[in-house]
Amino acid sequence: MTILELLDYAGVAVFAATGALAASRKQLDIIGFLFLAAVTGVGGGTFRDLVLGAAPVFWVTNPTYLLVCVGVGLLFYFTAHLFESRYRMLLWLDAIGLSAYSVMGAAKGLAATGSPTVAITTGVMTASVGGILRDLLAGEPSVLLRPEIYVTAALGGAAAFTALTFAGVPLSVASVIGALVAFGVRGGALRFAWRIPVYRHQPGRHPDDVM
Amino acid sequence: MTILELLDYAGVAVFAATGALAASRKQLDIIGFLFLAAVTGVGGGTFRDLVLGAAPVFWVTNPTYLLVCVGVGLLFYFTAHLFESRYRMLLWLDAIGLSAYSVMGAAKGLAATGSPTVAITTGVMTASVGGILRDLLAGEPSVLLRPEIYVTAALGGAAAFTALTFAGVPLSVASVIGALVAFGVRGGALRFAWRIPVYRHQPGRHPDDVM
Amino acid sequence: MTILELLDYAGVAVFAATGALAASRKQLDIIGFLFLAAVTGVGGGTFRDLVLGAAPVFWVTNPTYLLVCVGVGLLFYFTAHLFESRYRMLLWLDAIGLSAYSVMGAAKGLAATGSPTVAITTGVMTASVGGILRDLLAGEPSVLLRPEIYVTAALGGAAAFTALTFAGVPLSVASVIGALVAFGVRGGALRFAWRIPVYRHQPGRHPDDVM
Repeated sequence: MTILELLDYAGVAVFAATGALAASRKQLDIIGFLFLAAVTGVGGGTFRDLVLGAAPVFWVTNPTYLLVCVGVGLLFYFTAHLFESRYRMLLWLDAIGLSAYSVMGAAKGLAATGSPTVAITTGVMTASVGGILRDLLAGEPSVLLRPEIYVTAALGGAAAFTALTFAGVPLSVASVIGALVAFGVRGGALRFAWRIPVYRHQPGRHPDDVM
Repeated sequence: MTILELLDYAGVAVFAATGALAASRKQLDIIGFLFLAAVTGVGGGTFRDLVLGAAPVFWVTNPTYLLVCVGVGLLFYFTAHLFESRYRMLLWLDAIGLSAYSVMGAAKGLAATGSPTVAITTGVMTASVGGILRDLLAGEPSVLLRPEIYVTAALGGAAAFTALTFAGVPLSVASVIGALVAFGVRGGALRFAWRIPVYRHQPGRHPDDVM
Repeated sequence: MTILELLDYAGVAVFAATGALAASRKQLDIIGFLFLAAVTGVGGGTFRDLVLGAAPVFWVTNPTYLLVCVGVGLLFYFTAHLFESRYRMLLWLDAIGLSAYSVMGAAKGLAATGSPTVAITTGVMTASVGGILRDLLAGEPSVLLRPEIYVTAALGGAAAFTALTFAGVPLSVASVIGALVAFGVRGGALRFAWRIPVYRHQPGRHPDDVM
């Protein structure tokens, strides 16, 4: 198993775990756990494959990914209540998934097109779509709208991987460094509440007050 | 017209009806009815076709499906207010659509890959995506998060169809039994408020209280 | 650059601007601006390409579209607070994007299939998906559910373009007239609060009161 394959399975497994934790927070039944685990686990990679024209998508070609989601969903169904804070755990696992997937997405985008712009975009997309779908389906506030740095971490990982690959660094080294960059940024944001300074604050009014 | 084709048109028509009922609840105009009818009617099948690599998707190849959605949308635009409870009707029609689509989705997944894991997954996906999109777009609480059994019914129908097909049962018989299994489970859940016992209850706290 | 190419870049740019304005209303950081700008800018065209079987999608084949989104996102990051009403501006830019994309979507659907039904559907879909994704991701009330005419404008533009093309009118003329029809309808709705009379008003009750 190559580093990239390992990152791929790790990304699916930890994103599936965050889906199962969201299901636990919403007190869904066991099939709800499996459903959210699968959607979150394979959602980002599914969209990546679709826009790159790589259909049938990866889990249709290799259903092992689905079985990983089922296994993780079952595990968390029986253990999720043991964790003191499921939401905190969800965020940290999400950070790991984000790191693995930002590199995987960039690697697939780069292999398919050779364009760094596309690679960085598919990296960010792959890393964020699973969590977005999870939050939408579970009715949680979107991780995108939380004040801590999120998309920036995925962008950092994808950009680092892409730049290193163009610089001739071997794929395995570039992958590990890219994932570490993404995890460093997102982990720092979670641990120390890092935020990018906002240019100018001015919250939006409610649409009905504007019209 | 084969049994599978019949299930296909029936699934599109009844899901389109649930979309029109959601539009009626939100007091949308006639084009809003047609829009939600079409999205709900063909949404699940569209994602199924995309992940299986069957693009252009079914309603691009055969626009009759769109005309079915338009017809159903018009019908409900002029009659939706006559029903005593549009939401109850929405749920029962959704149950029929779920049953038809869980079998159709599994059949297409099985035909495309031969994998039972993929077949069950595309069955559940086809049956649930239309309703998820409808609820997201109409701003309704997602059927996924309601306490009655939902995804489990789709899983039951898709699994029954897949198992019977592998056991050598003719396609038409397997289709009818699969759809009846799904409808029996979902109908029972609606009529008798069936729920799968949850392993351990513990609602999630608000993200801001956790961080 | 043909009229259609111009409409295409214009649609991407103004939809990207609406995404950046939504990011500004939610006080996201700069990467959040770029993310919402890109999702809104290319979202509609991405789904259009996917259902038509035109994968890899347009921005994978030609990453210039992504750079347009990045440029627009940066511009609005530094200037959005200068506008008196960002939401009103968002709606008017959205109206321009809707007009450009309803024609572009219909043109691609017609070229791919020759079916007027498919052309009108892909026109409406291309014009509305970007705004739907923007509102979902930013947690704004969906433009779909606002009382003013929205989907109808996209339908008008796509239908006018399709009818004129079938009548033998040159592509460039049909494009301009289609876009003007869509903008006239949506602009009138915004300026004069046009609404299509609803057949019968009757708001939906909360699901829990129905069951």
